[in-house]
Amino acid sequence: MGLLIGMDIGGTNIVCGLVDEEGRLMNKIKKTTEAHKGSEYVFDKIQSMIKELLQLSDVPLTDISAIGAGTPGFIDPVRGVTLFAGNLKWKDVPTAEEIRKRTGIPAFIDNDVRMYAYGEAVRGAAQGYEHVLGITIGTGLAAAVVNNGELYYGGGYMAGEIGHFTFPEHIPYVCGCGMTGCLETVASATGMARQAKDLLRGGRVSVLQEWFKDTSIDHLTAADVSRAYDLGDPVAVEVMNHTGRLLGRGLAYAVTMYSPDMIVIGGGGALAGERLFAPMREQLKQSVYSGYWERLAIATAQNIDDAGIIGSALSAGKRAATR
Amino acid sequence: MGLLIGMDIGGTNIVCGLVDEEGRLMNKIKKTTEAHKGSEYVFDKIQSMIKELLQLSDVPLTDISAIGAGTPGFIDPVRGVTLFAGNLKWKDVPTAEEIRKRTGIPAFIDNDVRMYAYGEAVRGAAQGYEHVLGITIGTGLAAAVVNNGELYYGGGYMAGEIGHFTFPEHIPYVCGCGMTGCLETVASATGMARQAKDLLRGGRVSVLQEWFKDTSIDHLTAADVSRAYDLGDPVAVEVMNHTGRLLGRGLAYAVTMYSPDMIVIGGGGALAGERLFAPMREQLKQSVYSGYWERLAIATAQNIDDAGIIGSALSAGKRAATR
Repeated sequence: MGLLIGMDIGGTNIVCGLVDEEGRLMNKIKKTTEAHKGSEYVFDKIQSMIKELLQLSDVPLTDISAIGAGTPGFIDPVRGVTLFAGNLKWKDVPTAEEIRKRTGIPAFIDNDVRMYAYGEAVRGAAQGYEHVLGITIGTGLAAAVVNNGELYYGGGYMAGEIGHFTFPEHIPYVCGCGMTGCLETVASATGMARQAKDLLRGGRVSVLQEWFKDTSIDHLTAADVSRAYDLGDPVAVEVMNHTGRLLGRGLAYAVTMYSPDMIVIGGGGALAGERLFAPMREQLKQSVYSGYWERLAIATAQNIDDAGIIGSALSAGKRAATR
Repeated sequence: MGLLIGMDIGGTNIVCGLVDEEGRLMNKIKKTTEAHKGSEYVFDKIQSMIKELLQLSDVPLTDISAIGAGTPGFIDPVRGVTLFAGNLKWKDVPTAEEIRKRTGIPAFIDNDVRMYAYGEAVRGAAQGYEHVLGITIGTGLAAAVVNNGELYYGGGYMAGEIGHFTFPEHIPYVCGCGMTGCLETVASATGMARQAKDLLRGGRVSVLQEWFKDTSIDHLTAADVSRAYDLGDPVAVEVMNHTGRLLGRGLAYAVTMYSPDMIVIGGGGALAGERLFAPMREQLKQSVYSGYWERLAIATAQNIDDAGIIGSALSAGKRAATR
C-alpha cells in the first residue's frame, strides 16, 4: 500500500507522522494547533506540515497512498466530517475533504480514541488479540473496541463513551455533558487533580499543601498526585484508590458488554501506572463475572504517544485499499 | 433460500417452527424438553418433531435448506457446540452436528437471546433499525446486539450479559454466577417475584398477603405482582419501580457502550409492560448522555413468543447461503 501519513489533530497540538505499511513510525513533526484561528488556518497548517514531513523524510508526495487523521469529538468517518469537536470548536467540518483538496491524496478521518485503540490493536500492546477494548485516560475518559481488526461504531458512530457512565452514589461532580456523576469527572487526569484539590480545600493534611503553599493549587496536576502517592501521602493514596476502584467498576460494565480479550490503557492519565491500575484491577475482578475475567489481559499502551498516528495511518491505508 | 426450520431448545420446552424465507412462521409445534433424559433423548425428540412439523405442513424434507436452533447458555456458534447450558445440563454438546446427522440438513446453533434479538431485528419490532439492542426479561436477564443484520459476539461469544451487571449498593442478592448484586437477581420475572416475597416476609401489608394466605408465597409469580400493581398495591408498586429503575440504570450503561437506535424488549417478564417500562424509561433518560437518548426508540417485541424461532431460522438460512 506504499507509505502513509497519520495525524492526530488535538485541541492543543497537531502531530503528523510518516508511517510505513507495517505500521512503523518513520518520522513525525508536531506543531501547536491554534484552533482559535479557525479551521481554514488549521488545514493550511496541516498542508504545510505534510510538506515539511515529506521533505524531512526525503519522500515524494506520490509515494503516499493515504492520509488518516484522528480528531476528538463526534466524527462521521464515512462522510469524513467532524460533526462536533469541542476542543477545536469545530462543527460539521468536512475534515477529510479539506485535507484531500490540499494534498490530492485520499484522506480519511475518525475519532482520535478509536484511532488510538486501532493503533494498539494492530501494531501495539494488543497485537494478536482478537477482541480489544482500548481506553484513554486524558482530559476525559473514552473507549473504543476493535474486533479482529474491525472498529465497533454503533449508531451515530457514538459507541464506547465510558467516560459518561454515571455513578451518582460515588461521584458528585457535574459533567460538561450536563449529567451529574460521570466517570470521567473522576477517572481522568483532570479528575484526579480535581479530587486532590477538593480534599486539600476541605482541609486535609497532605504534602501537596506544602508543595503548593506559594502557588495556587489550581495548578496541581495528576502528575503531582502520583509524586505525592510515592511518598505515601494519604490524600494522593485516597485519590488513586477511589479513582482506580470507580474505573474498575466502569470497566466491569464495559467488559460485560463487549467481552474483550485485552484491555489496553493509554493517555496521559495512564502514566499513573500501578498506583491507579492496582485498585482498578482488584475492583474489576470483583465486579465482573469470572468467565470474563479469566480470559482477560490488561496492558498499558505500547506506543503511548504514537498509537493514534499509527492507527490513523493504517486505518486510512486499509480504507483506501478497500474502497 | 427455500424453507427453513427454526427451533428454540429451552430447559422446559422445545418449540420447532417452519419459516419461509421472508421470516413468516407457517407452522409450529411444541413439546416438553425432558432434559433430564439426556441429550441423545432430546435430539431424537427433535428429529421426530421435525418430521411431525413437515408432515403437518405437507412439506418434504428436501424443501428445507437449513435448520437453526437457539439454546440457552454459552454457545460456540462457529463450531455449533453448546459449551454450557445450565437449564439443559449440557456441557460441550455438538448440537448442530447432532441435528444435521439426524436430518441431513445443514444445521446451525446460537444463543437463544441472540436469536431472539436477531428475529426482532430482521422481522420484528426493530425491523428497519440499523443498531438494535435486544433484551429478554425471563428467568434471567440477557442482551444481544445486531448491527445492520450482523450479531455482535465478542470474545468467547460472551458479549452482552447485562444480567450480570452488578449494583452492590442496591441489590443484596447472591447470583447463581457467584457474584452479589447482579441485575438479573432483581430485573427478571424470578427477581420481581423474589422481591415481592421478601417484602411480604418482612411484614409489609399487601393484597398479595391475602391472595397467598392459603398457599405458600413460594408460588407467587411476576404475573401476581402485575395484578396487585393494577390494584395500587404498595408492595407491587415498590417492586415495579425499583426493578424498572435498576433496569434503566443497566440499560444506560449498555446504551453508552453500543449506541443502539432501538431497544426491543421481550421475554415473559416483559408482560409487566408499562408498569415496569415507565420507571425504566424515566431512569434511562436520566442516566444516559442526551445524544444517546435522542436517537433511541424503545419497543416491546413484536413476535413475543416466536422471535427466537424466526431468528434461528433466518440466521441459519443466511449462514447456509454464505458458507
